[in-house]
Amino acid sequence: MNIIEIINKKRLNKELTKEELEYAFNNYLKKNIQDYQMSSLLMAICINGMTDQEIFNLVDIFIKSGDVLDLSCLDGVKVDKHSTGGVGDKITLIIAPLVASCGVYVPKMSGRGLGITGGTIDKLESIKGFKTSLSEKEFLQELQDIGLAITSQTSNLCPLDKVIYSLRDVTGTTESIPLIATSIMSKKIAGGADKIFIDIKCGKGALLKTFEEASKLKDLMERIGKFYQKTTICEISDMNIPLGSNIGNSLEVMEALDVLKGKNGPLRDLALNIASEMISISKNISKKEALIEVTKSLDEKKALNKFLEFVKYQGGDIDSLEVSDFQEEIKSSKSGVVTNINALNIGKLSCYLGAGRINKEDKINYTVGIILNKLVGDEVQIGDTLMTLYKKNKQEIVLNVADYYDIK
Amino acid sequence: MNIIEIINKKRLNKELTKEELEYAFNNYLKKNIQDYQMSSLLMAICINGMTDQEIFNLVDIFIKSGDVLDLSCLDGVKVDKHSTGGVGDKITLIIAPLVASCGVYVPKMSGRGLGITGGTIDKLESIKGFKTSLSEKEFLQELQDIGLAITSQTSNLCPLDKVIYSLRDVTGTTESIPLIATSIMSKKIAGGADKIFIDIKCGKGALLKTFEEASKLKDLMERIGKFYQKTTICEISDMNIPLGSNIGNSLEVMEALDVLKGKNGPLRDLALNIASEMISISKNISKKEALIEVTKSLDEKKALNKFLEFVKYQGGDIDSLEVSDFQEEIKSSKSGVVTNINALNIGKLSCYLGAGRINKEDKINYTVGIILNKLVGDEVQIGDTLMTLYKKNKQEIVLNVADYYDIK
Repeated sequence: MNIIEIINKKRLNKELTKEELEYAFNNYLKKNIQDYQMSSLLMAICINGMTDQEIFNLVDIFIKSGDVLDLSCLDGVKVDKHSTGGVGDKITLIIAPLVASCGVYVPKMSGRGLGITGGTIDKLESIKGFKTSLSEKEFLQELQDIGLAITSQTSNLCPLDKVIYSLRDVTGTTESIPLIATSIMSKKIAGGADKIFIDIKCGKGALLKTFEEASKLKDLMERIGKFYQKTTICEISDMNIPLGSNIGNSLEVMEALDVLKGKNGPLRDLALNIASEMISISKNISKKEALIEVTKSLDEKKALNKFLEFVKYQGGDIDSLEVSDFQEEIKSSKSGVVTNINALNIGKLSCYLGAGRINKEDKINYTVGIILNKLVGDEVQIGDTLMTLYKKNKQEIVLNVADYYDIK
Repeated sequence: MNIIEIINKKRLNKELTKEELEYAFNNYLKKNIQDYQMSSLLMAICINGMTDQEIFNLVDIFIKSGDVLDLSCLDGVKVDKHSTGGVGDKITLIIAPLVASCGVYVPKMSGRGLGITGGTIDKLESIKGFKTSLSEKEFLQELQDIGLAITSQTSNLCPLDKVIYSLRDVTGTTESIPLIATSIMSKKIAGGADKIFIDIKCGKGALLKTFEEASKLKDLMERIGKFYQKTTICEISDMNIPLGSNIGNSLEVMEALDVLKGKNGPLRDLALNIASEMISISKNISKKEALIEVTKSLDEKKALNKFLEFVKYQGGDIDSLEVSDFQEEIKSSKSGVVTNINALNIGKLSCYLGAGRINKEDKINYTVGIILNKLVGDEVQIGDTLMTLYKKNKQEIVLNVADYYDIK
């Protein structure tokens, strides 16, 4: 077996055997196969696709490249949730404590943000003292003690995914449904949960731009889950407009807190919807019954208390949250109704302000970001504040409002 | 402009602009773009193809990456010939002096062999003293003096082709008609000839296995030639069986000498066919008239004398040709008629004996190779010698005759 023959086979759109996939990927991890050979193979996969059998095998190879977390010491159902990421997506901060407050374990490994897509770990780090890197022992202990723990990925979980993800990022091979599914599902399965819920973001502010692509990913991930005997539910949610009104790290934690404290709106509705899906598959009850349970837990502030307990457990001081003093209000020069907010451009602006990373090494500023003062459907008068920018210094921001807000 | 966007565009099968191709390829030559990014782009090109406009632009970028040879000091038509290479292909050694002996300049840059495909430069180096690396000045002087010169590629001719070719070789991206055509035509055009003849080998012993692929390459190279106003003729010739009876470096020079001295057979016929095509396009006469002229030149030993003059001019001693003393005859264990000789396996065996390179750094042995004592159509009795192996030492060769000869 040699790598050139394997690349040529995939170039000609033939199915690779498990042995061929193992040879290529395991030797890449061992650095016996070069970056330029793997990127060539990844591009052939991007264009020609993979069969289900190839994908199941590749997920297995990814999982076996590292450790698998053993959660059997926890007596009860473990449910994990993943979002494919989007602009202003702070939903994990709401539903993780909400689900845990209903008595289901939520062992969660999260990532950092890249580009316009924020990461839960970055958001949590905007809370002073919050420790995001737990040892396996600490992670399990916290789960036993309070039913919820969130940590950044351990280095031994799917190491193959890390190196492949980095290479895809710089070789134009990110937009492949089989590779996205393999990356997500191998980590979720290695993470040890029994039930997996995936929130697939779809639209201008997400990695997946069309409903068709999102549907393909949903079906594929559910098939992978079935193959590995892990109940997997995927929901597709809209990301054409930003999620909620706050974008930026501490700003998003604040908005999540508002919902946990009882604030109404689309963010609360989405959180209740996802949480009830997770409770439904975890407790084997109908979604309707689950919705009643999670709504009660939210309204009785059980979810809020679980969140505060969790923040304290991981060393964070919730009162330390701060936003930048350098604020600038962007006013409307026309009147009408907001018909659209461009999530992609809002995401880019937030990055530019310093809330996100453009390159992996970039440091982010937790106190900057954007508050959308007007949301889709709101009426606007000339001179009204549309959004408030939280900037790292007195920098002047020159922008064209029409790139962000459609007002008709 | 950035390389990820360019790769993504080609991945989605959209046409790249000249500026995008320049950005990607010129920056790769300057090492601003990494191997793993270029290999990803090359794979996308392999699978999705290129439009004619993209190919014409890429040829231009390849040509402008280095020097263009100026042959205007030569008063007359200059014709170049290229073969896509095959097993036992020593045809250049016959037609270059044959065409030159008819009064047309033959400025020829040749390459070394890799894998089962031999290279003219290696074959000429089996002649002791023969200098294959000429300066531009020496090359032009020899052309003025005797009308024929063969040199290994100069480092300043299409340097982009060199780096791309090396990368394709190790990334499973060799079998792309647009990339093969770009590589060949950019070098031929930069080589400065007015007329270009390409001998496309097709079959089991060649890079192109099917007539369909060979036809696509032929049409594409002729379109590139037309675009660059260089008359370009491509002929497709069979490479399912080895060309002639000798394979190996000095053995092939000896066989070419035999044809120049008057030996009849398919090799002479093919040489006369190609040479008459070249004379026909160079002198603007019919192929029939050209055939009469080249046949006369061959029969009157003008071509032989031109070859000897050329070898001497470049410092070679034709009497120095030698073959290995370690010979082994492979006998037939059945009787019948030879219906096929497997060119691919003969090529591999020749490589194994030391006549070819498996890796670029390998040293080759000029004295080893194979003589096919029986050719397709010959009758064979049990015990007859089918082929004679010329080995570098007493090594014992274990082989299965049926892998090389079909006898029915």
